Parts: sequence; structure tokens; C-alpha cells
Amino acid sequence: MAGKAKNRYWIGFDLGGTKMLSTVYDAEFNELGNERVKTKGHEGSEAGLARIATTIERSLVDSGIPADQIKGLGMGCPGPLDLRRGVIEEAPNLGWKDVPIKDYLESKFGFPALIMNDVDAGMYGEYRFGSARDYRTALGVFPGTGIGGGCVYEGNIISGTKSSCMEIGHIQVMPEGPLCGCGRRGCLEAVASRLVIASHAAAAAYRGYAPTLLEKCGTDISRIRSGALAASVNAGEKVIESIIRDAARHIGRAVASVVHLISPDIVVLGGGLVEAMPELFIDEVGKAARKRVLPAFKESFKIAVAKLGDNAGTLGAAAWAEHNHSH
Amino acid sequence: MAGKAKNRYWIGFDLGGTKMLSTVYDAEFNELGNERVKTKGHEGSEAGLARIATTIERSLVDSGIPADQIKGLGMGCPGPLDLRRGVIEEAPNLGWKDVPIKDYLESKFGFPALIMNDVDAGMYGEYRFGSARDYRTALGVFPGTGIGGGCVYEGNIISGTKSSCMEIGHIQVMPEGPLCGCGRRGCLEAVASRLVIASHAAAAAYRGYAPTLLEKCGTDISRIRSGALAASVNAGEKVIESIIRDAARHIGRAVASVVHLISPDIVVLGGGLVEAMPELFIDEVGKAARKRVLPAFKESFKIAVAKLGDNAGTLGAAAWAEHNHSH
Repeated sequence: MAGKAKNRYWIGFDLGGTKMLSTVYDAEFNELGNERVKTKGHEGSEAGLARIATTIERSLVDSGIPADQIKGLGMGCPGPLDLRRGVIEEAPNLGWKDVPIKDYLESKFGFPALIMNDVDAGMYGEYRFGSARDYRTALGVFPGTGIGGGCVYEGNIISGTKSSCMEIGHIQVMPEGPLCGCGRRGCLEAVASRLVIASHAAAAAYRGYAPTLLEKCGTDISRIRSGALAASVNAGEKVIESIIRDAARHIGRAVASVVHLISPDIVVLGGGLVEAMPELFIDEVGKAARKRVLPAFKESFKIAVAKLGDNAGTLGAAAWAEHNHSH
Repeated sequence: MAGKAKNRYWIGFDLGGTKMLSTVYDAEFNELGNERVKTKGHEGSEAGLARIATTIERSLVDSGIPADQIKGLGMGCPGPLDLRRGVIEEAPNLGWKDVPIKDYLESKFGFPALIMNDVDAGMYGEYRFGSARDYRTALGVFPGTGIGGGCVYEGNIISGTKSSCMEIGHIQVMPEGPLCGCGRRGCLEAVASRLVIASHAAAAAYRGYAPTLLEKCGTDISRIRSGALAASVNAGEKVIESIIRDAARHIGRAVASVVHLISPDIVVLGGGLVEAMPELFIDEVGKAARKRVLPAFKESFKIAVAKLGDNAGTLGAAAWAEHNHSH
């Protein structure tokens, strides 16, 4: 069977706001080659499509696999997407609209391509190869600039009929709460994203409560990254720790809602912020979630940190292409 | 095919807090006979099991179908349940604990039996035969003493690995909100169930804001039923209407969270309260939900009222038995 599978390869593509990454895999999802470049979304979607194609070609060259040996490509994209038609309807981070990426790639390369939500790709990667391997219902929560969510249920990504869902960042956790980037109030990501944590941390630094952080990053929130926040916590800056624990508790309460609705067996937390302070997040999210759920659900789920880091997206996209090809 | 199917019959059983109902169906789910009796949970679970068996037997007699012509039985039960073992772990309404109902019925009757959450049974009925027929993702919300939820996703009921889920009544919509029957604060059912509406309405009646309601029901919340609330609204008692609209808006906001997570194509509202004031609920839940969701989801779902009334539970349980038998 290994012999039969070996002449078949997959490509996983991760289209991010700042970089794009194409990786070629063999049938067992060992990496054979890759290419990573800046996305440069501001150059527009036509230039973007050409850049994506070149990146794929270079990853093929790097792997030594010809395009006609590729069985399929999966691409994780920012959204909203039209999953069936394979169109990026809108990618605000890139400034793109109505990009028919599936058709473009299929006519260019001749192998089947599918697109999927980028968070779903990462979560599917964790389900196939990482922390959520083989769990019946696996929820992923990834706090970053926003807060992404994804769920694999009985081997399939839960999605809407037309586009992706599991938008845990936009469920309301605080009625009349702070304004969210989406225009509504009290969304989870308006109270618990890394961006919100950074902005509260900057205010604390400005007030003099976090000298380590102030020295390292100043009060510019774009400089307050996950590593600096972790260093501040490790230096004993209690206000920063409280800000992060508050955010984690909000995430835990939102997780409790998801537990009541779909009862995940495992909740995977990921992203740079979580990976910089894994114990804090596991502890605080777990406690807040268990405190908030009905007794029947208290021990119904585990909490774990994502394992695959930056490779989750390409691995998950490639594996999802394989999954869909054989269904 | 009809000829082949006609020697196969199903039983749907609805085990409620006050009554139990057993219905015998043919292969096309036409009703052939039924039996309905009071549950009398207080007599204990052993007496209860005997009562269930007698009710099944009488429904068989009523239908004229012998037990050996029954292909399977499905039973909607209050929970928490152990779905795989077929055990009612706890039914607080009945005062029962650890009732191995599946084993009891299978050894008594010789046909396969399964148990399921009672709300899931009703929702599956609506999916197969009612308002949610053939939708890919169908969410049901049923406000009553509590607020029940159920979801059919790609033809299957979403459930936890061990027990049912979709407990929309216990997702938090108001942090630090009113105490819920479950012991936590701000659950949807603590601000929007029929019971909460009745208690607010009783206070309004006591204060003199709802003379029609006061005359009909007094201030005893157990007498304030759905029909009386609807009559009060129709008589122009604005405070009562506001209380109900507030509750419906809370339901709409909770529905918005579910839309963000699993993107239902249709949301079915059911139960006596909704059926007494369908336009009010459709309107208010729909508006509140659409106001709260991301633009991509605004037109992604319809809202409808349940169609099957009291038959949803037995129909859904019988049809779920059929579905599981052929899988």
C-alpha cells in the first residue's frame, strides 16, 4: 500500500495576511519541499494570484516533484469564502474581493484545488497530526489579532452550507461590552484577543505598572508581541498577568458555551500568545469553562495546546484535500 | 419497495415529565395506533418501567401490530442520558436515577430500542417531517419551563460522545445575570424561558399592569400558561408584550451565537409559547439574531415555527430508530 501511495503527492498552501507558504507532501504527509514569501496583498489580487502560482511552482521545484504527480492542493485562506465555488469573497486584510482562486489554480496547474478557512486548516492539521488526533469532536481556539475557531466533528470540519463557521471570536460574551472590529459589541475577540491584551498592557505600561514591558516595547501596541507579554509575566508584573488571565477567563466562558452546544472532547488552544504561556492558558481557560458548564459536561472535555505551530495550516490544508478527494 | 417495507413497523415513545405517549408507525410513518398515560414519576423508576412497558403494549394492541413485527423503538427522554448504554442517568423531573431503559425494553420486547434526548427527538421529527425538512443544518429552540435545543447536521443529530448536547438554554447571555435553575448565572433560560416570562408577568399583573391576565390567572405563575399570555398581548397589555419581546430578543441573541458557531440554514422555534404567538417570536428572534451576526451570516438562515406539535417527539424518536437501524 505504501508503494502504491508513493506516486501521489499533495500540496498544502497557507495564504496569510503577511506571508504565504506552499508545502509539498508525500502520501504520508512527510514534507518534501516548500516555499515561503511575503503576501503583499496591497499589490492587488491579480498580482496576488500570480505570486501564489509562482510560490507553488517554487515549492514543486524545491521538492523535486513534477506538477502532474500532484493529486490535489488545499489552501487555507482568510475569508469570507465561497467554499463550493472556491472564491475568496472578501479578504479585508489583503484588500481583495471576489477572487476565483480555485478556478485559477486548476486551470493553471491541472490538479484539483480546494480552499478552506485558514483556522479550519490549522485545526484540521491538529486533528490529523497534532494535539487533537482522532478525537471525535475537537474544538480549536486561536487568539491572535482576532480569535479564530474551528471544529472537527466525526472526522469532518463543521461548516456552513456556503462558507465556514465556528466564529467563536464573534459570539457575544458581554452585552453592551466594548466595540469589536466587526462593528458589534461585546464579541469575545473584543475582550480577549492578543490585540486587546496588548492594548490593555500598553495602558498599564504607560501608567508605570509594567516597567519590563515598557523598557522592551514602549507603549506602541504593534510592538507588544506574545514573547514580551510572557517576559513581563515572568518578571512578576502582576497587572500584565491579570490582564492576560482576564482574557483567558473570557475565552473559557465562551468555550463553555461551545461545550453546551456541541460537547467537544478536546479543546485545543493555539497561536503565539498561547504558546508563549501555555500553562497559564490551559489553567485559566479550563477553570473558567468547567465552572460555567452543567455538571454533565464538567469532565467531558480535555484542554491542550496546539502542537504543530506554523506547519498546522499547510499540513491541515493538504490533508483536507486528501480527505475530500477520497470522499 | 412499498410492499417490501410494509411488514416493518416502528414505535416512537415520548417520556415526558407529566405524560408518556407511545405511537406505532408503519414504514412510511403513518400512525397506526397509540397510547397516552400520565407518567407518575413519583412512583419510582421500577413502577415507571412497568408503566412504560404497559403503555407500549397497549399502543401495539391499539394498532393491531404484533410485537414481532416491530423493527425498532426510539424513545425521547429527559436527561442527562448515557446514549450508548441506553441509561437515563438522572431525570430530576421524574426523580429517577440510573434507569437502564434500553436493556429493560429489549429483553422485554425483543426488538432493538434506543433512547435519545427528548428535545432532539422533537427536532429530528421536524427535520424529517416538519418545518426543517431536508435542510442541511437545522437548529431547534423550544422555550418552555427551560429552553431546549437540538440540531440536525447533515442528517444526523449533533451529540456528545456520551450524551446529548445543544443545550442552548444554558449558554450564558448575561454575565452576572439572574440565577438559573442549574445554579449558574445568566443562562438563556434564566432570562427567557416561559417560566421566567410567567414570573415577570405575574409581577406585572400584581402591580396592576395586566388586568386581563390578572382576572384570568391571578398571580400564581403555575396558572399563567401560554394561551393566557397570548390573550393578554392581544388585549393590548403592553407590559406583558414587552416582557415576551424582551425574552424573544434574548433568544435571538443566543441564536446569533449558534449561527456564528454552526451556521444553521433554518432555525425552528417551537413549544406552546411560540405556537401561541408565532409572529411575535419569528419577528423578534429573527431581528435580534440578524442584528447580532457578522454580515456573512445575515441572510444565511431562515426562521420558522415548528409544525408537528405534540407528535414531533414520537415521530422523531421512531424515525431516528429507523435512521440508526439502517446505518
